Amino acid sequence: MDEKLVLHEDPVSGNCYKIRLTAALLGLPLERKSYDILKGETRTPEFLSRVNANGRIPVLQVGSRFLPESGAACFYLADGSRLVPEDRFGRADMLRWMFFEQYNHEPNIATLRFWLAFVGEANLSEAQRVQLGPKRAAGDAALELMDRHLAEHQWFVGEAPSLADIVLYAYTHVAEGGGFRLADHAHVCAWLDRVGNLPGYVPMG
Amino acid sequence: MDEKLVLHEDPVSGNCYKIRLTAALLGLPLERKSYDILKGETRTPEFLSRVNANGRIPVLQVGSRFLPESGAACFYLADGSRLVPEDRFGRADMLRWMFFEQYNHEPNIATLRFWLAFVGEANLSEAQRVQLGPKRAAGDAALELMDRHLAEHQWFVGEAPSLADIVLYAYTHVAEGGGFRLADHAHVCAWLDRVGNLPGYVPMG
Repeated sequence: MDEKLVLHEDPVSGNCYKIRLTAALLGLPLERKSYDILKGETRTPEFLSRVNANGRIPVLQVGSRFLPESGAACFYLADGSRLVPEDRFGRADMLRWMFFEQYNHEPNIATLRFWLAFVGEANLSEAQRVQLGPKRAAGDAALELMDRHLAEHQWFVGEAPSLADIVLYAYTHVAEGGGFRLADHAHVCAWLDRVGNLPGYVPMG
Repeated sequence: MDEKLVLHEDPVSGNCYKIRLTAALLGLPLERKSYDILKGETRTPEFLSRVNANGRIPVLQVGSRFLPESGAACFYLADGSRLVPEDRFGRADMLRWMFFEQYNHEPNIATLRFWLAFVGEANLSEAQRVQLGPKRAAGDAALELMDRHLAEHQWFVGEAPSLADIVLYAYTHVAEGGGFRLADHAHVCAWLDRVGNLPGYVPMG
């Protein structure tokens, strides 16, 4: 990697942490530039025109180019490394869990954490309040699916940690902030410990 | 590809169509097995235990292995082909649009199409009804972001069609079923025509 890497992030965001953890496990230097989502710092005209027209973080800056979407940024950093399976099916299966994370896990587990631990339940809109129940059920279902998979596997894909483990770790290990009960999922808890003990691991924040 | 490929699908699902279009553009033979989501055919004990514990389609069957998540299945089929950019940044940028599609586009544009054109507005739950406005606004924002990108680019990544174009095409070209006005997005309409004219193109259904 010849070009300088800068992570445009909010340190409390699990999506940003995924990229930082990937870089740390691979020993890649990463400069950090912080924004406060709650203060609207990713919706300024300058951010929208220069960093991401979608008004979201994380964005990985590679030299003068900008790469939004946490999963894509992790893939860029890890492409060709031990964190991406070498065989064709394994590579696609890793992406399967990464898409599952963004579609079934993050919109429920990360969103409830954001609403309950950062916005505050008293400040939720009617449209948000009515989604508390469905998101709780969908988040529990995602954790249960992970638990059943981990009952029979040490890692999500193959015999070694991959990006699938990293992206699923980010919001799972702080799921209790969204009111989810990790103790109900023993295989998930054991896997969280395995990820937390990987050489090069860095904590969130 | 030595192993037999079977797509477990619902022919009206855009997520299933993505995989079928990828296979068609690459000339890969694909057997099709249909399920009716509205009749609960992907929630039977047999489907859950054998095909996908997540109860969802599409699932791409590769020999005796099963690969859920449309983006992962498309990647499996196209890995190493002209539909995946050869350079590292381009490959990650393709995934960026694929994650955008699953996070910002599909949950709004495909969901409104499903609710309005298949379930029927009169049959929506209270939790669904209160999301009509937010999903309309988020879907419009996704189309607008695509339109601004396509004002300056023929394809989403680089100078040739990639999986990013295929996955974004699937629900965009039927967005009017969800009440979205494609005519408001001229660059999107021109790009839809370009995708529809690719050699090997097959229609949805």
